[in-house]
Amino acid sequence: MKITVLGTGMVGRVMAAKLISLGHQVEMATRNIEHTLGSEQKNGMTKQTFGEWHKANSTVSLVTFNEAGKNSDVLFNCTSGMASLQVFALVGKDNLRGKVILDLANPLDFSNGMPPSLNPVNTDSLGEQLQRTYPDSFIVKTLNTMNMNVMVNPGLLTGEHHVFVSGNDESAKQKVKLLLAEFGWKPNQILDLGDITTARGTEMLLPIWLRLWGTLGTATFNFHIQQS
Amino acid sequence: MKITVLGTGMVGRVMAAKLISLGHQVEMATRNIEHTLGSEQKNGMTKQTFGEWHKANSTVSLVTFNEAGKNSDVLFNCTSGMASLQVFALVGKDNLRGKVILDLANPLDFSNGMPPSLNPVNTDSLGEQLQRTYPDSFIVKTLNTMNMNVMVNPGLLTGEHHVFVSGNDESAKQKVKLLLAEFGWKPNQILDLGDITTARGTEMLLPIWLRLWGTLGTATFNFHIQQS
Repeated sequence: MKITVLGTGMVGRVMAAKLISLGHQVEMATRNIEHTLGSEQKNGMTKQTFGEWHKANSTVSLVTFNEAGKNSDVLFNCTSGMASLQVFALVGKDNLRGKVILDLANPLDFSNGMPPSLNPVNTDSLGEQLQRTYPDSFIVKTLNTMNMNVMVNPGLLTGEHHVFVSGNDESAKQKVKLLLAEFGWKPNQILDLGDITTARGTEMLLPIWLRLWGTLGTATFNFHIQQS
Repeated sequence: MKITVLGTGMVGRVMAAKLISLGHQVEMATRNIEHTLGSEQKNGMTKQTFGEWHKANSTVSLVTFNEAGKNSDVLFNCTSGMASLQVFALVGKDNLRGKVILDLANPLDFSNGMPPSLNPVNTDSLGEQLQRTYPDSFIVKTLNTMNMNVMVNPGLLTGEHHVFVSGNDESAKQKVKLLLAEFGWKPNQILDLGDITTARGTEMLLPIWLRLWGTLGTATFNFHIQQS
C-alpha cells in the first residue's frame, strides 16, 4: 500500500521503518524537509538525528505536509497531539478526502508542566475533533495507548494484551485491523470499542499510562482487559 | 476491625456483606435510616429493597451520616461520586480525623445524559478533593476501576488482573493492602501508583470501562497491566 506517515518524531520513525519492512511504499511528511534533514536534535532513545535515521531508511520518501497523502491509501497521524489539527490543516481536506487515517496521537498538554493534562478531554477527544473537522475522511483511533515499540511488535510482551480501535466507518476499521494484523496483532488482541466517541476512553488512559511508566520503571507494558 | 460503610447502594451492600463475612464489625451510614429501611426501590441486580437486604444482613448496624465513623478504624466511601463531598460534610471532620478512608467512588456526572462525564477530571480528581478537604484523614483511592463483584472476589476472574492504590500516607496504604488481601487480592495483583494525585489516572479509566461494559456485554472484567 501507499502510506503517508505524518510526523518525523520517534513514533513516526518506528512506524515508517516497520511499514517499509512490510513492503509498503512509505512517504513521511514534515513541515520543512531541509530543516528536518539538517536538524542536530537526537532521538532520546536511539541517539540518532533524523538525517542519520533517514540514511538507514532511505526508501522512505520525504514530502512537505501540503504535499502529503495525495496518492496514499492510508495515513498515520504520528504528530504530537497538540499539533495535529494544525498539521491536518496544512495537508488540507483535498489530500485527506476519502482516506483512512490511523490517529495515534494523544492531546497531551505540557504547557502547565508535569504531569501533562489532556486537551480536549472528557466530553471530547482529539479523534473526534479530527473526524468533525474532516467529515469526508475516515479517522480510526488506535495504537495510542502503548509505547511505540509495542505498537509495531506486540510480541515484545509474551502475555495477553490489547489494542483498541475506535471509528465510525466499518470498512475503514476493517482496513486498519488488517494493518494491525501485519504488525503482529492477533484477532483476539484487537478490541473494537465502537464509534469515534470511544476515543475519549482510550485518550483518557494516558494519565494512568504515564504514572505506570514511572511506577514500573519501563515503558514496555500494555493494558489487557481480563474477561475470564 | 470496626468499619463504616458510607452509602447503602449496590456497592455499599456488597462491601458490607463481605466485611461481615470476614468477621469485621460493620456499620452502614445513610442520610435517613427510616427512609432507607422503608424504601421500595429495588436493587437493579438483586431485586432486593434495602430493608430486605438488611433482614438478611442484620448484624450490620445502621447510623446516620452525622454519627458515622465515630468509633471506626476504617471507612469505605461507597457513595456516588457526585454526592461524596456532601456526605463527608455531614459526617464531619471530627469523625473523619485520623481515619483511613478507602475511596471507591467515581465522580460520574450524568447531568448531561449518557455517557456520563467526569467532574472533576484531568487536573484534579475526587480522591484529591477529599484529601484536600480533610487533610487530617488518610484518603486511599482503590477498587474504583472494576465491578463491585470483582472488588470483593478477585477470583471471579481466573486470569491476571490488577487493583490500583493511590494515597499520600504509606501506613494508611499498608492498612488498605491488608484489607485487599482479606478480599482475596494477592500481593502481585496490587499496583501502588503513588500519591493521591494518581487517582486522576484511575478515575479517568471510567470512560473506557463504561464503553467496554457495552462492548463486552458483561461487567465482569478488569484491567491488567501486562509487563512481560
